[in-house]
Amino acid sequence: MGLNLAIAGVTGAVGQEFLRLIEQRNFKFDSLKMLASSRSAGKKIDFLGKQYTVEELTKDSFKGVDIALFSAGGGRSKEFAQAVVDSGAVMIDNSSAFRMDKDVPLVVPEVNPEAIKQHKGIIANPNCSTIIAVVPVFPLHKAKTLKRMVVSTYQAASGAGVSAMMELENQSRDVLAGKEVKPQVFPYQIAFNLFCHNSPLKENGYNEEEMKMLHETHKIFSCESIGITCTCVRVPVMRAHSESINLEFEQSITPDEVREILKDAPGVTLLDDFSNNRFPMPIDADGKDDVYVGHIRQDESIPDNKGINIWICGDQIRKGAALNALQIAETMIKNQ
Amino acid sequence: MGLNLAIAGVTGAVGQEFLRLIEQRNFKFDSLKMLASSRSAGKKIDFLGKQYTVEELTKDSFKGVDIALFSAGGGRSKEFAQAVVDSGAVMIDNSSAFRMDKDVPLVVPEVNPEAIKQHKGIIANPNCSTIIAVVPVFPLHKAKTLKRMVVSTYQAASGAGVSAMMELENQSRDVLAGKEVKPQVFPYQIAFNLFCHNSPLKENGYNEEEMKMLHETHKIFSCESIGITCTCVRVPVMRAHSESINLEFEQSITPDEVREILKDAPGVTLLDDFSNNRFPMPIDADGKDDVYVGHIRQDESIPDNKGINIWICGDQIRKGAALNALQIAETMIKNQ
Repeated sequence: MGLNLAIAGVTGAVGQEFLRLIEQRNFKFDSLKMLASSRSAGKKIDFLGKQYTVEELTKDSFKGVDIALFSAGGGRSKEFAQAVVDSGAVMIDNSSAFRMDKDVPLVVPEVNPEAIKQHKGIIANPNCSTIIAVVPVFPLHKAKTLKRMVVSTYQAASGAGVSAMMELENQSRDVLAGKEVKPQVFPYQIAFNLFCHNSPLKENGYNEEEMKMLHETHKIFSCESIGITCTCVRVPVMRAHSESINLEFEQSITPDEVREILKDAPGVTLLDDFSNNRFPMPIDADGKDDVYVGHIRQDESIPDNKGINIWICGDQIRKGAALNALQIAETMIKNQ
Repeated sequence: MGLNLAIAGVTGAVGQEFLRLIEQRNFKFDSLKMLASSRSAGKKIDFLGKQYTVEELTKDSFKGVDIALFSAGGGRSKEFAQAVVDSGAVMIDNSSAFRMDKDVPLVVPEVNPEAIKQHKGIIANPNCSTIIAVVPVFPLHKAKTLKRMVVSTYQAASGAGVSAMMELENQSRDVLAGKEVKPQVFPYQIAFNLFCHNSPLKENGYNEEEMKMLHETHKIFSCESIGITCTCVRVPVMRAHSESINLEFEQSITPDEVREILKDAPGVTLLDDFSNNRFPMPIDADGKDDVYVGHIRQDESIPDNKGINIWICGDQIRKGAALNALQIAETMIKNQ
């Protein structure tokens, strides 16, 4: 049986990563529609020995499509969701549009693949910093019951798209040349600087990125009782996010137990070399599938060995977006 | 009465900042000895309309000296401490050599100026990331009794000296030019990358920088019961450290109370503009005296309003090193 695939937002950073991953993972399809805004329509893309023409994303784009991978912004996801569902396709949506909708499963295949079955035409891909955190934290939660999590992120420019990555590059050149910096994509200088995440602030003072970590983790873990607090920060790094994660469990857990649990955990690579002070770095995770985990330590400020600090890096475009969405598609196909 | 001053390590990043601060703060002295290793001896430095010749740091350097500001590395501090004390001078030491020595006060003038009086010839300047954290945290501790603190740092290259700042600059040029990166000062690529702090690892898995935050804060606050856990990270930023600090207090405290306490706190500038998503950035703190504090939020994962998140930036060379040491000297002189 053949699969008819569509990619909405194919010319973006995540869209382009979809193509690389489809090739690398030998993801089988019968037909592929490359969709984007009218601005990119008509563009030619060579892929797997064939030339594709980018078509304009319209409500008629999904006739005969089985799976539509969406990474075209929340506005477009909302605009076209009904058309996708009405055409009988399943939308796997990378935006935040439907993540907290109770009828939409929010899925990280290493954590809650069973949620996929409950979809009503839309499956949501979580936010990048959430995905990267939950891949290593979930197996620890399963083993020792997570009570509270304090996260500080070090987020790459790629989360704001190709233009943000270009801005980091060009602005760095300008700073090195002693030229004045004129932020255009980010609100503030990103070269040799960092700032609290530029997503809109909520009434409680947290930015949306910080609240996504809380609400999405609760939904993915099906557990609202876990205390989660988060500080999200943009750093001058190209495409891998890092996170400093402090964990408190209901049961005792040692760093050796953490390593034992994570060494076989799906989607995790342990990089925890204390003899060489060698722990995950963004350039390790760059272009890689796994979330890298290291610098695992007992948090001695929590009694009875119930506290752990971990340090993680994961590729924002790959596992933080395109790969996770494609894994959702793969899991769905396998379960059919 | 005249003050005879010596600066050991005058050619380094902190040594040079001492000179700028002495001028800016109109710090009065009668005589000034500029000391450095034999490598720099003989170098001429123009300062306040006079030409100084850098002298080699030897055990005879301190005759007639009243205060010796040391920033020449822990090894030299240890080597010359006895000679400084024997000569009757007071050593204000920027290295980690004597910080945890029970006979040596460890001082941040905004926090524990009274400790200065107990010196026996040596006063220690805390580690940069500790100083920057305690300036805003201490007034909150005084008001609401700190129970536990979870810190993640974003530390600038300057903490590793002038050569590290040069490496960040040159390596960034290389990356932008597509050239291979060859780390020399830092163990790993710093341009467009970040890594767990490069200080030696302790038996418990924490690096020295992380343990300094714990032990030094306990000593400065004269309170060993506060739980402190820390993850220290180097980021591609030039000279201001940032820190994401999660605080748990014994008593309830709201973000408004935090702002009320910090708005008049010595050494603190509030930059907490939620309407413009404008919080402290390294480039704000660069070259400034104060620690900038913002993005103040209630941590709702701690019951009864006892949790707070803050985000801070402070100049590593200035308040993190030279300024704090000079403020110790100023306080000492004022109290005489």
